[in-house]
Amino acid sequence: MTSLNPPARVDVVEVAPRDGFQSIQAPLPTQDKQRCIQALVDAGVTRLEIGSFVSPRAIPQMADTGELVAAFAERPELRLSALVPNLKGAELALDHGIREVVYVVSVSEAHNRSNVRRGVDESLEDLGRVIARLRESEGTRLRLDLGTSFDCPFDGTVSWQQVDRVLDKALTLVGELPVEVAMCDTTGRASPYQVADHFTRLRERHARPGLEWAFHGHDTFGMGVANALFAIHHGATAVDTACAGLGGCPFAPGATGNTATEDLLYALQGGGVVTGIDLPRLLAAADLIADLPGGQTASHLRTVPRERVS
Amino acid sequence: MTSLNPPARVDVVEVAPRDGFQSIQAPLPTQDKQRCIQALVDAGVTRLEIGSFVSPRAIPQMADTGELVAAFAERPELRLSALVPNLKGAELALDHGIREVVYVVSVSEAHNRSNVRRGVDESLEDLGRVIARLRESEGTRLRLDLGTSFDCPFDGTVSWQQVDRVLDKALTLVGELPVEVAMCDTTGRASPYQVADHFTRLRERHARPGLEWAFHGHDTFGMGVANALFAIHHGATAVDTACAGLGGCPFAPGATGNTATEDLLYALQGGGVVTGIDLPRLLAAADLIADLPGGQTASHLRTVPRERVS
Repeated sequence: MTSLNPPARVDVVEVAPRDGFQSIQAPLPTQDKQRCIQALVDAGVTRLEIGSFVSPRAIPQMADTGELVAAFAERPELRLSALVPNLKGAELALDHGIREVVYVVSVSEAHNRSNVRRGVDESLEDLGRVIARLRESEGTRLRLDLGTSFDCPFDGTVSWQQVDRVLDKALTLVGELPVEVAMCDTTGRASPYQVADHFTRLRERHARPGLEWAFHGHDTFGMGVANALFAIHHGATAVDTACAGLGGCPFAPGATGNTATEDLLYALQGGGVVTGIDLPRLLAAADLIADLPGGQTASHLRTVPRERVS
Repeated sequence: MTSLNPPARVDVVEVAPRDGFQSIQAPLPTQDKQRCIQALVDAGVTRLEIGSFVSPRAIPQMADTGELVAAFAERPELRLSALVPNLKGAELALDHGIREVVYVVSVSEAHNRSNVRRGVDESLEDLGRVIARLRESEGTRLRLDLGTSFDCPFDGTVSWQQVDRVLDKALTLVGELPVEVAMCDTTGRASPYQVADHFTRLRERHARPGLEWAFHGHDTFGMGVANALFAIHHGATAVDTACAGLGGCPFAPGATGNTATEDLLYALQGGGVVTGIDLPRLLAAADLIADLPGGQTASHLRTVPRERVS
């Protein structure tokens, strides 16, 4: 019998400003986004994926990411990141003051083509160039988002060996550079034991100083909190969630929002895990986010009487 | 770092016919209930809490439990149980052919009074009489449902020491008799680490041959699947769930349905855990149950395209 002792600390990475906002089709005024982000920061969120530097034609909602970065880049307590699909995105991110670049490549060829419109090998080639660029930029960080690490909306279940093939190539490019590798359950179809298995196998193969692990999940199949906890107990030190469960992936049919930050926080708080985030204040931010026109949210904690959340 | 190896087998106890149906205010025809139960059995469900023997004035919906028992009691593959709040209920259950009596007592005085209209000590006194009756009836089993083992809707968080005080008295009465003890998260407010802690502490204190452990949970706070898995990894060999997530507790304000059987099955199936239940067929049963007029359901798996569930 294993005893699941809670970890001392988990980094909760708030992705509502990226994965969440981009799921909303109608344009959102930048100042509304900024108000939501401010509410998240007021709740104690420090790691924020604030947007993405992608073609505004592909995802118009992300066109104001630079403005949002400018509004928050001067806060020394914040660790802002932005998602990029290619070298151009990485350069734009760095030019706008982003110090943590989230480079996304899907394990599944079909999803990578749908998501960033090129093959996995092309994405990896560009990753090499991004890494070269990051080596020249002191104080920058690399986060590698491995999309469809468990399941692909087009090709179904993804094995750990498939993840390993992409990760292995990527880590060869990364070399000795510090990196956070996120296995992303893009569709929410991963199950807890699959998450445990992938983390166990890949950490065994690729453990080294400076390599940290993260999990990015969706709650579509109701596994969100369980998957996150299983990832944490198998070595993930950071988990991506979206406040209010806002979101989905416009390129993954059927996917609903990221696991709600408040749901995961509730689970972690019950074990005394330090996240730095204040749950009642986060719920206030969730209320703001849930009021955004056109957003789909999926939060359990917002449905219970507020005085019961403590 | 712990490695969460899936257990070989988990007993999934279907409680929709009791905890689920009783949440529906309007009368349900017995034949409709029977059709739902048949669909559950067709899916491979073998452990079923088929109803309760309580005052029909208190819970009119349970008045036909005897008829339902009669319809299924002759199936040797089924392990039918019924909930009882007192000696009278236990006697009725046995008279109707029930071989597994689920005796319910809440840890919290306030909830016990609300739920079964008497104090915890009175419930325990009657448990002594129920046990005497079971000792005379060969081939019968006892299940002890400890309501509000984590949280009380009236008094808030329940400590493991509070559970221990009630359990200790109960087990003194039980003696050497085999028993399954279920810690019930009546309100869904338990968190995974609280579940882990209670199971760890109480198993340490009360482990003995013939004593098995179960967990009964609700998904109100979004912890349903995670709590069940944490219970399993801390010694629970059986978990109560309700197909389609039908349910709630009419005496626990704010509580929604039990964790959906299909959601937990999906999690277990991902680890190759044997339950004997066929998920696609269970989803067919869930569709039937979700169509019952007046029922509230809360299933994640029913919201995803059926071909993605495998």
